[in-house]
Amino acid sequence: MRRRLSFEALPGIPEVRSGDALHELIVHALDAHAIALEPDTIVVVAQKIVSKAEGRFAWLDEVRPSDKARELARITGKDARLVELTLSESTDVLRAVPGVLIVRHRLGYVMANAGIDLSNVPGEVGRERALLLPLDPDKSAAALRDGLRAGTGKTVGVIVSDSFGRPWRNGVVNVALGSAGVPALIDRRGDPDRHGRTLQITQTAFADAIAAGAAVVMGEGSEGMPVVLASGFMPTAPEVDCRALLRPLEADLFR
Amino acid sequence: MRRRLSFEALPGIPEVRSGDALHELIVHALDAHAIALEPDTIVVVAQKIVSKAEGRFAWLDEVRPSDKARELARITGKDARLVELTLSESTDVLRAVPGVLIVRHRLGYVMANAGIDLSNVPGEVGRERALLLPLDPDKSAAALRDGLRAGTGKTVGVIVSDSFGRPWRNGVVNVALGSAGVPALIDRRGDPDRHGRTLQITQTAFADAIAAGAAVVMGEGSEGMPVVLASGFMPTAPEVDCRALLRPLEADLFR
Repeated sequence: MRRRLSFEALPGIPEVRSGDALHELIVHALDAHAIALEPDTIVVVAQKIVSKAEGRFAWLDEVRPSDKARELARITGKDARLVELTLSESTDVLRAVPGVLIVRHRLGYVMANAGIDLSNVPGEVGRERALLLPLDPDKSAAALRDGLRAGTGKTVGVIVSDSFGRPWRNGVVNVALGSAGVPALIDRRGDPDRHGRTLQITQTAFADAIAAGAAVVMGEGSEGMPVVLASGFMPTAPEVDCRALLRPLEADLFR
Repeated sequence: MRRRLSFEALPGIPEVRSGDALHELIVHALDAHAIALEPDTIVVVAQKIVSKAEGRFAWLDEVRPSDKARELARITGKDARLVELTLSESTDVLRAVPGVLIVRHRLGYVMANAGIDLSNVPGEVGRERALLLPLDPDKSAAALRDGLRAGTGKTVGVIVSDSFGRPWRNGVVNVALGSAGVPALIDRRGDPDRHGRTLQITQTAFADAIAAGAAVVMGEGSEGMPVVLASGFMPTAPEVDCRALLRPLEADLFR
């Protein structure tokens, strides 16, 4: 038995607009390329297109920065309106230095700029538009899973992914913001290793590993393909969504 | 053109012993399973077997804990000898709380226990053995790459991977400790996105993404398969090794 996992970018996803039904765009692209979903398929979707479909846009020129936002903008060198949006999506500011604003997002993710993106958002001439994270990425993943089931008859896993920086390593990797139908976290506490010793590594961030691998074929910018099919390997561990991946505040050693 | 990346665990790698030539074990397993390396293959190898081949073992009963190690052992609840080994491999202690000891490894990685592993190490009865990280994982990767080239005539990429915790997320993911023949970090600073705006995400930790994906089929414990072949997707970015993934100390906001 070969242990294999493959990632394939799904061609033919158009520019996503507010109100689009993502599952319909994906089913259409699958049909157009004669690709079938399998029971072990995990559909990995870039946060960006989920947010766009959910209409999570904000016009920068409609944002009125607070005093706190202006102060953080001065420190970081960022646009005060973007900082205001970031604060509105956050519960805490962890670090603010030139070029860097790291916050705890209202959903618990510790990340730069609350995941707000200005790139790849087509705005009107002379106006800038920001794109916020989905309201509830686990819920978005579950809804997409339901839609794909209705559209294809197949029950698959879904992961909503986004790129994150890391405190001690250069470069971004993708992690899972939301998921449905997969064990986002696999807990093997108590399992023995091959010499009978209890395993030291006991929890594996499965959804993050899938998101990271998928990002390689997903790409970014003008060559980006925002939907990737992961197939060939679905663990038997119990389904838990991405809330399981968030370390509780009281266990945070690096506030 | 389909954009695809696949990970396949290589069966038939035996328990690795000090002094083993890893490239010979891998070539033997490839031959036994009629698997050919391709120019776009990246051979992902678990740190554990690199360390074993390099003989990076330490007997716990030969370690004399310092006062500092005893104090940290008291705080963390860890074995003082293991803490002493950890300190001997580290330049700095970032956090020590019950159950957790996070250090800066002498090579710059911020990680728990300096990557020292007690599991899956067959020791003599009644004696415990620890396994330290390789002396220089980039160098280990380069040596393995040379050995595989000599043994197969193929020039591939090599990544030495290990599992890391994250400060704000539960569960481990694998990252790249060392690499050869791959762009460990892809720097796209200045590239435009599809709307002509400069990309906000400018550096991608390619080797970490490959390590993370490979870990899914690598597994751990009694079903672990420590060599995984990643194939189908090799970026055209310039080769840099894993030192490029380490954020410089002066840019560390979370000491």
